[in-house]
Amino acid sequence: MPQKPAKRPASFPPSPPSLTLSRKRAREGWVKGEERERAPSSTKTKEAARDDDTAITALKLPGAELTAAMQAYFDKCTEKLGFVPNVLKAYAFDMPKLEAFVAMYNDLMLAPSGLSKLEREMIAVAVSSHNRCYYCLVAHGAAVRSLADDPVLGELMVMNYRAARLDRRQRAMLDFAVKLTAKPWEIEEADRNALREAGFADRDIWDIAAVAGFFNMSNRLASATDMRPNSAYHRQKRE
Amino acid sequence: MPQKPAKRPASFPPSPPSLTLSRKRAREGWVKGEERERAPSSTKTKEAARDDDTAITALKLPGAELTAAMQAYFDKCTEKLGFVPNVLKAYAFDMPKLEAFVAMYNDLMLAPSGLSKLEREMIAVAVSSHNRCYYCLVAHGAAVRSLADDPVLGELMVMNYRAARLDRRQRAMLDFAVKLTAKPWEIEEADRNALREAGFADRDIWDIAAVAGFFNMSNRLASATDMRPNSAYHRQKRE
Amino acid sequence: MPQKPAKRPASFPPSPPSLTLSRKRAREGWVKGEERERAPSSTKTKEAARDDDTAITALKLPGAELTAAMQAYFDKCTEKLGFVPNVLKAYAFDMPKLEAFVAMYNDLMLAPSGLSKLEREMIAVAVSSHNRCYYCLVAHGAAVRSLADDPVLGELMVMNYRAARLDRRQRAMLDFAVKLTAKPWEIEEADRNALREAGFADRDIWDIAAVAGFFNMSNRLASATDMRPNSAYHRQKRE
Amino acid sequence: MPQKPAKRPASFPPSPPSLTLSRKRAREGWVKGEERERAPSSTKTKEAARDDDTAITALKLPGAELTAAMQAYFDKCTEKLGFVPNVLKAYAFDMPKLEAFVAMYNDLMLAPSGLSKLEREMIAVAVSSHNRCYYCLVAHGAAVRSLADDPVLGELMVMNYRAARLDRRQRAMLDFAVKLTAKPWEIEEADRNALREAGFADRDIWDIAAVAGFFNMSNRLASATDMRPNSAYHRQKRE
Amino acid sequence: MPQKPAKRPASFPPSPPSLTLSRKRAREGWVKGEERERAPSSTKTKEAARDDDTAITALKLPGAELTAAMQAYFDKCTEKLGFVPNVLKAYAFDMPKLEAFVAMYNDLMLAPSGLSKLEREMIAVAVSSHNRCYYCLVAHGAAVRSLADDPVLGELMVMNYRAARLDRRQRAMLDFAVKLTAKPWEIEEADRNALREAGFADRDIWDIAAVAGFFNMSNRLASATDMRPNSAYHRQKRE
Amino acid sequence: MPQKPAKRPASFPPSPPSLTLSRKRAREGWVKGEERERAPSSTKTKEAARDDDTAITALKLPGAELTAAMQAYFDKCTEKLGFVPNVLKAYAFDMPKLEAFVAMYNDLMLAPSGLSKLEREMIAVAVSSHNRCYYCLVAHGAAVRSLADDPVLGELMVMNYRAARLDRRQRAMLDFAVKLTAKPWEIEEADRNALREAGFADRDIWDIAAVAGFFNMSNRLASATDMRPNSAYHRQKRE
Repeated sequence: MPQKPAKRPASFPPSPPSLTLSRKRAREGWVKGEERERAPSSTKTKEAARDDDTAITALKLPGAELTAAMQAYFDKCTEKLGFVPNVLKAYAFDMPKLEAFVAMYNDLMLAPSGLSKLEREMIAVAVSSHNRCYYCLVAHGAAVRSLADDPVLGELMVMNYRAARLDRRQRAMLDFAVKLTAKPWEIEEADRNALREAGFADRDIWDIAAVAGFFNMSNRLASATDMRPNSAYHRQKRE
Repeated sequence: MPQKPAKRPASFPPSPPSLTLSRKRAREGWVKGEERERAPSSTKTKEAARDDDTAITALKLPGAELTAAMQAYFDKCTEKLGFVPNVLKAYAFDMPKLEAFVAMYNDLMLAPSGLSKLEREMIAVAVSSHNRCYYCLVAHGAAVRSLADDPVLGELMVMNYRAARLDRRQRAMLDFAVKLTAKPWEIEEADRNALREAGFADRDIWDIAAVAGFFNMSNRLASATDMRPNSAYHRQKRE
Repeated sequence: MPQKPAKRPASFPPSPPSLTLSRKRAREGWVKGEERERAPSSTKTKEAARDDDTAITALKLPGAELTAAMQAYFDKCTEKLGFVPNVLKAYAFDMPKLEAFVAMYNDLMLAPSGLSKLEREMIAVAVSSHNRCYYCLVAHGAAVRSLADDPVLGELMVMNYRAARLDRRQRAMLDFAVKLTAKPWEIEEADRNALREAGFADRDIWDIAAVAGFFNMSNRLASATDMRPNSAYHRQKRE
Repeated sequence: MPQKPAKRPASFPPSPPSLTLSRKRAREGWVKGEERERAPSSTKTKEAARDDDTAITALKLPGAELTAAMQAYFDKCTEKLGFVPNVLKAYAFDMPKLEAFVAMYNDLMLAPSGLSKLEREMIAVAVSSHNRCYYCLVAHGAAVRSLADDPVLGELMVMNYRAARLDRRQRAMLDFAVKLTAKPWEIEEADRNALREAGFADRDIWDIAAVAGFFNMSNRLASATDMRPNSAYHRQKRE
Repeated sequence: MPQKPAKRPASFPPSPPSLTLSRKRAREGWVKGEERERAPSSTKTKEAARDDDTAITALKLPGAELTAAMQAYFDKCTEKLGFVPNVLKAYAFDMPKLEAFVAMYNDLMLAPSGLSKLEREMIAVAVSSHNRCYYCLVAHGAAVRSLADDPVLGELMVMNYRAARLDRRQRAMLDFAVKLTAKPWEIEEADRNALREAGFADRDIWDIAAVAGFFNMSNRLASATDMRPNSAYHRQKRE
Repeated sequence: MPQKPAKRPASFPPSPPSLTLSRKRAREGWVKGEERERAPSSTKTKEAARDDDTAITALKLPGAELTAAMQAYFDKCTEKLGFVPNVLKAYAFDMPKLEAFVAMYNDLMLAPSGLSKLEREMIAVAVSSHNRCYYCLVAHGAAVRSLADDPVLGELMVMNYRAARLDRRQRAMLDFAVKLTAKPWEIEEADRNALREAGFADRDIWDIAAVAGFFNMSNRLASATDMRPNSAYHRQKRE
């Protein structure tokens, strides 16, 4: 189906069918179309992500010299991803902070676990959705789309994980992670038992909590600094 | 930049750089890679939107015969959009309800107004984001991307409109719409005056309130019925 | 029991019984009564609804010429109710908006449905109570009192529907409507099933959602514009 | 204007004007009217307050013998109000509790104060509205109507005090009382200063806090025990 | 185990082990230690409770002459506690208010009841924790420590009662009291039945509600006036 | 002042003064005292922290062999603190996780910063108070008491930081940290500017956000696993 979205609005009724009673006046508006529209054209908001690859946070923090390990790591990111994720650049004003962040991130998201890498990214996005964190939703929404090879699953995690048709295991996992995000003080043995009954071992429960906890940290650091996601994420795995 | 997302995860460190101290055990896990992963592959969640074009809501409501006006309207949608939006199909069990919905929707979103069509869609998405409505975020997020000719602005409205770099007018408009969504009982003259100071006429204030109100209705009807968005929306205007 | 409320306060202890220990000072205050009261008399708040029948909203929107259909409708309202509801006058600055609102309202609240007209008004008031919408609580609280021929049921819906002694059906209906109002993103199949188990068909679930959704829209339009209810509602069906 | 509410619904459009397009089916429903309504008549909810004067709380607590002081007090209530308020009967299972409650209530609501008796009742109702306490809204809503000699002011306090057109003093008073109810942990010197700037002395601030605090207690005791208000309150000062 | 907390920080790693990779720079910071710390020493916050025994509230209310009964009561407090609780001094600007408060407090917290004195204090602290009331948490946290002869139980009530390992009875009691504090409008027969099933009689339910209600009042009066607890409470029963 | 708390309740009125009217019955209860108390003695809750030093979390995770670096670190903790903090033992099932946690913790809380160590601990406790995290409130409340050499400041941070008399700098710091905890999605440039106006550099803003973020992570890991604090914390720096 060849689509030409630039020529017509995506909203469903591009021109009004003549169905309402005394809509004469309104219809004239439509016939004359755009020129009757009184609102200014919104050129301001065009290219909303234009500076996101250069002005990464709202804080002015001069970059430090990368250690050899971190230089190698950045090189590997560029080689494999095509860019260095902005969160790493944001941390690069201080090498001990950057290294501690990278060590914890890599362990949590990539080390062997009872949770698949996709499941860990699903937790990341569901937590970031509760916290409405723009950086993490863009970057990890793209990760869910890619790891799942499914352009829609990422959208579901971003928008409302409850609307996704998940199996019992993944639903229990996200229910725990989001309750832990919203009301950590109400988590009790019954919540852990719900995970056990869905097939998770105690080690898995730790990992669910650790990933959910980590993104509760990252969401807040990103929001506190107005961190902007690399623009490349938006295009990843859309088909 | 040629990307091959299917071959590697979008998350930023696809394989761990050798930076942490005693990570021997972990490193082995990475070297052996996927086969050591204990978690089940998530084939279940693959093709998350597979049935969304056929099983539109969770309610079993046999379709009614379309009136001539509605048949013409559906035909026009198919001709211009390539599909009939699922919300219209959901309403099509009862012609008076469908016609009343279409009349109100078309007037609000397409009739002449001090708000541009894009601005009305921005309100729609910011309100739907507060209410975490999957249907409306998918359908109207696509509308924002298309009307703005900007694939990122829609994401910003879906994720957190406060992260968008809006001019004063549009920021005031969305602040009013989202407060009206979250705490309608706290809207007072000071809120209306903030709109007036941002350049809106009283007629515009009505339109902001009416669009925000309409999506507070639609969000709830969609959530109450588990309404699914047409899968075509996901691909619209991503580049 | 002849009551003369104008002569004495409705609060229960109009003059203090001599029961507390060292209340000498306080008692003197009571004996000398009103003249010792230091607070200004609140003549300002007298006749709180005085202008509500003329200054209907906070927006200055000149009325449009009524279409023939709308003129006939207003006439019928005056004939049957004794007045034109202010919400209609508020919309009367634009005929297509007025007609779309009237069409949707009449279909939802008056067309045949598995819900009685009273039940639809009960939903309207319970939703409006959650949203603390003055206009809708006054107008539809009166409707509940009249349709139920019970001056107290309206008060219960306005104040806290959970305090009403409802049968299972109506309680399930209002629980769904109020959850849909408060947290639409948490509505799931279990919520729909609770309605089915209380005897509702899928078509009824649509109607519950549609009425609840409609008042989530109307509440916000009324709050956004400070819409005032016709003063006549207050007296309706109080005995 | 002679009204006959029993014969017609208070909702505004009692029969549909013929304004929508293809409403044939719907119109038939209306023409045939009530007999086509599928929903059961709600006789269950009729006389919603029928037992409220006899079954006062959900707790079975046998009444104690009234002390002489309390007997005199109850007699005075009957003489002046026509009934003993149910909250007093609810406490009458234990004389020390009843006496302590009466002593505190009478001091707060009736002793000399910089707040008028009406203002204290306005605080009572605005607090009870936040807490959605059926007992207190009925009993003290009636008190506001009577003390203000204004049938509408009580409704405004019950429904949303922000919709009332109050002078600065009373608005500041209620803003403080309701914030103290909703988020006591956020009250600070700035809140007290807002009262001082509105003309209140430090002694008045104590009284505002004490009345708001007292109803935060009473609301909870009433909700915890499902306390029912005397049915006579509903009719008081409606014209 | 002899501890010298004044000489070293209580936070767990007082000097960094040499475990991270390129932490050279950071380590230098630690070696040079305190003199590299750029932040000002916080002498301002030293002795945080210094004035709490003299400047009791933020309101200027001259004390009244104590009645004989209240003088005797204050004397007894000094004799038995070593001080007069600040809440009593705060009320001492008006004898009827002081006496009513004392009468209600003593009845609720000390009169015979199905709840032990400790249980009533546990309710007081759990409620005050929800309301984040500094005065009541300090004073009644000390009471729980003393009555339980357990320095930790008070901390648990202050911080999160859900973390305490309570028997079913006490857990049900606190769940009811805290729900009644947070959402009184949602308390229903099911909540009362949960108490009955945990062994409470209807009279006990009244007492739980009355104590919870009382502290919802006191918390607000304390927060409204910035009431400060006697400094002696902090030291009570810490071992 | 020699106190014997075991013999008398810490609540202020240990025996009732004879002030209320008809309290005969109640007084008898008091005279006969404890033996009339119907409630069971609460021996169950005695020694609330008894097992907290051995049963550290609710998860069964067998400890791993400590690496040399971690063994040295644990030894240093024992030498300097007298114990190994339970959070470290909880992580000790997996060396990479433990090392990453320690590296990040030490950098955040101990490395040179524009924030003093005390200020970082104040953030830790204020954040943990919002999240009602028992482990972190106990451990870091003790740290605030020790670093400030002030037994009360820790209590203020635990209970409600708004009640502390802080200078502008520290108040702004905690306001930012707690807003970032409660509503990270609402943090904007105005919030950062409030910190700048209170004297913080952009690097300090990062540190405030990083510490607040870290405890939003740790709070959730502790709550998810029911982590118990070492009992020794409770006694630290109480005088």
